[in-house]
This record gives sequence, structure tokens and C-alpha cells, in this order.
Amino acid sequence: MKANQKLQNRIDKGYHICVGLDTDLNKLPENIKKTKNPLLEFNKRIIENTYDIAASYKLNLAFYEAEGIPGMECLQETLALIPTEILTIGDAKRGDIGNTSQMYAKSLFDHFGFDASTLNPYMGYDSVEPFLEYENKLNFILALTSNKSNKDIEKLVLHDGRFVFQKVIEKVKYWNKQKNCGLVFGATNSSELEENVNSFGKMPVLLPGVGAQGGSLEEVVKIFNRSENNSFIINVSRGIIYADSTEQFGKTARKKLVELNNEIEQLKK
Amino acid sequence: MKANQKLQNRIDKGYHICVGLDTDLNKLPENIKKTKNPLLEFNKRIIENTYDIAASYKLNLAFYEAEGIPGMECLQETLALIPTEILTIGDAKRGDIGNTSQMYAKSLFDHFGFDASTLNPYMGYDSVEPFLEYENKLNFILALTSNKSNKDIEKLVLHDGRFVFQKVIEKVKYWNKQKNCGLVFGATNSSELEENVNSFGKMPVLLPGVGAQGGSLEEVVKIFNRSENNSFIINVSRGIIYADSTEQFGKTARKKLVELNNEIEQLKK
Repeated sequence: MKANQKLQNRIDKGYHICVGLDTDLNKLPENIKKTKNPLLEFNKRIIENTYDIAASYKLNLAFYEAEGIPGMECLQETLALIPTEILTIGDAKRGDIGNTSQMYAKSLFDHFGFDASTLNPYMGYDSVEPFLEYENKLNFILALTSNKSNKDIEKLVLHDGRFVFQKVIEKVKYWNKQKNCGLVFGATNSSELEENVNSFGKMPVLLPGVGAQGGSLEEVVKIFNRSENNSFIINVSRGIIYADSTEQFGKTARKKLVELNNEIEQLKK
Repeated sequence: MKANQKLQNRIDKGYHICVGLDTDLNKLPENIKKTKNPLLEFNKRIIENTYDIAASYKLNLAFYEAEGIPGMECLQETLALIPTEILTIGDAKRGDIGNTSQMYAKSLFDHFGFDASTLNPYMGYDSVEPFLEYENKLNFILALTSNKSNKDIEKLVLHDGRFVFQKVIEKVKYWNKQKNCGLVFGATNSSELEENVNSFGKMPVLLPGVGAQGGSLEEVVKIFNRSENNSFIINVSRGIIYADSTEQFGKTARKKLVELNNEIEQLKK
């Protein structure tokens, strides 16, 4: 099934929360730390408790790479636990010259089997093109990110008065010939989201930054409600997976996800 | 030894060529393909034949990640083969929000033990800051890259008439409080290099793009000769490691590196 379709199927059910598996060995419950493969055991419990009501899973590669090769093995094993009908996003923010990006695409899509990637647009079209050649995959390209320093480059003002990130959105729309591009737009930037949401067209949008980073779920949902684009997914990592540091963390993760889903349902009415 | 010092020691000897270990399983000589661990065997031979006259080694993570976990094992084993006095660059072009970049830094510097990284500046200061906290390491931040699509974002014109990449250079100079920043500047952009070289200060510069990508070694060396900055390293990957597809590839790699070193020596006279 095409990545786009997987996402749409979940959105059609009203699910907009992407569960971020930013799994950090130091933050795991004590009973999990004692297991043979703590990262994997933790992810397994989270997935078991959320897979039927999540919009997608986003695996942040940094957290797995930080554990070296055992971490990469855990990444691979985690992906195998996620039912195939759910979109999996390899959040790696890659981007390099063509022959190198081709290798990164091969790693994320062929080797690990992710449905989607996140990409950094700084190096321009030929740096993302090898990813776009995979017509059944989906590529979320950074527009305006959720961190404070987004002002440093993304919000530089161009000669025509627009911000750099607005030019990126324009370019991504142009690059989207195969309908396999999306955008990353930080939920911490609600006024910029409101101003720019209509420039996204129908492209899927991944919004990190709700919760620990201070973005508002309510504002994001209201803004998309007023737009013609329903393909938004809000990433929540710490607010779901670390909501409870006891043995009950799996059930609590589900409870938190249910609450978020309900909140969105109410806001969409 | 600090990363900066490792680099300077080699530059003081007149060595400016960074050997790029973009090792691709499909491009290896037949006799190497038959060995138990072809990627590692190939790298071993290249390193044995070049370590005493190379300025540094740059390992392109994409090429190892593309082979999955065995590839990452090879990356680790390759690093163990490089003498500790030579600068090793983990070319991964990372950059993400703070807590994620911290994990990438942990992976590259603590787990793999690289001396240096390459970073993407799009997300701004807080996305590179966790790398800059490692005061003994070195971080080459993308300014103007070697690919054609560098025009898409890097060469957008700002409201003050400067290019985005020029603003990046200004910012990196400001971020360089611990003297552990450098720049990536594509050797394919010789006119831009000439115009901007004096804005680099004394920061080390990594220049990819000579050879297969069309950049001119002669122009790069002449431009730096006219500047006050001697800390430049020119990356050559394919032109050294794939110069010969026979069993003699190791000796040929050395021969090519000697030729490049001699060419630079002549140009510096």
C-alpha cells in the first residue's frame, strides 16, 4: 500500500497523533531496564498499547544510533513489530549530494523498510530527489521547525520579503510531482502556521513540538479545521511514551493517546 | 589530542587531501568482493597505503548505513584501523532539535569516536550546539555545497543582498566560541570561494567536489594561497579509492594521493 494511502486511512478514522518513539535508555521504567533488550521491550509495549489508534509511528534515528549497533538492531526489530498498515516515519533529516542521498534512501526505505522519511532541504532539489524517486514512499521536508533557533536560517528574510521557509514550501510544492512530498512544520509556530497553512496545498504535514516543546494541539487542530487540508499529523513523543515511569507505562501511553484523540475529535466538531 | 591540532599537524607537513572513504560494495575490485568482509578489506588496503600522507579521512555514513547493520559494523571496524593521530570526519550532515542532536553527537563522537562531524545549519544554533559542546572535536558546517541545486536555498538572496550561505558563514563565525567550528564549501564554486574566502577567518574549511563533481584543485589551492587561511582540506573520494579496479587499487590510491600532494606542493611554491 502506498505510504500516502496508509496515512489517509488513519486520518479518515480521525487519528492525527503520530507516536514518536524517541526511546532513551536513561528514561525507561526500572522494570524495563532490567530486561535483556530494554529499548525493544519498551517499544514493544508502547506499540501493543497504541497501534490501533495511532496515526503513525515516528522513529527518531538519533536515539537508536546513540546506542551504536545494538541500537540499530533495536530499530530494525521495532519496525518489525509495527503492523504493516500503519505509516512508519524514519525521522533522520537526511540530505546530501545525489549519490549520497541515494544511499540514505536505500538505507531508510530498502534496508529498514520505512514508509516515510524526514528530509532537510538546505542543499536543494538534487539532494532530496533520490528519495522522491521512491513513488510509494512519503517524504516530509523541513519547512519551519519547532526549535527556537528556527529564526537563524529558516526565518531569514529574502529580497522579496518572504522568509526562507516560505520559499522552501513553494519549492517542495514544485518538487511534489509524484505526490510523495510532505512538510514538517513545528507546532510551536502557531501564528506562522495560520498565515501559511493555505500555501501547503493538500500536502501531508507532520507537526512536532506539541507537549514538551510547548506547542498547542488545540491551536494546530483549529488552524487545520479552517483550511482545506486534513492531512496533518501531530507528533507526540515524551507526552505519550514517558507519561508514566511505572510498570503501567503501556496502559498510560494508551490512555494519553485516547485523551489526545478525544480532544481532537471534540475540536473537529 | 584536539581535533584541530591533528589537522594542523598534517597541514604543517603540506598535506591537504582528505581521503573520502565512500565505499560502495558495487564498485569494489573483484578480488575484494570475494573476501569475507569486502567493505572492511577494501578500506583496510586504502588506509594502509595512504595513512602517512593523508590530511584526514572522511567516512560518508550513508554508504555504511546503506548496508544496514553489517555496514555500521564495518564503519566501526574501519575507524579502529585509522591511526589515532589522523583526523577522522564522520560525514553525516546531521542537525535536529537539541535533545536529538545531542544523541547524534553521542553517536558520532562517543560511540564511533570520530574527531569531527559535518553539520547542516538549516535548523539554526540550537541544532548544532550539542556538537559544539565537545570542545576537543571539530564541526564542519555546510555553507555552500558542491551540488548544482545549491542555488535552491543556499544561494537565495536575502533582503540585504547577501546569499543565505553568506549569512551562514557569519553565524558560524559567531558560534565558534570554542574554536571547534569549520565550514564545508564546495570546490565546484570557485568564484564564490574567491569572493568569500576572507570571510572564513581562520576556520578550517573542508572542500568536497574536486574530481568526479568537476571542482578544480588548482583553483582551490591558488585561492587559499592568496588568503590568510591555510587550514583547508580538499576531499577526494572516487578519484583516489576507485582510480584502479584491479588488485593493485591500494598502490594506485597511494600513487594518486602522492600526485595530488605534489600538485599542491608545486602550487604553493
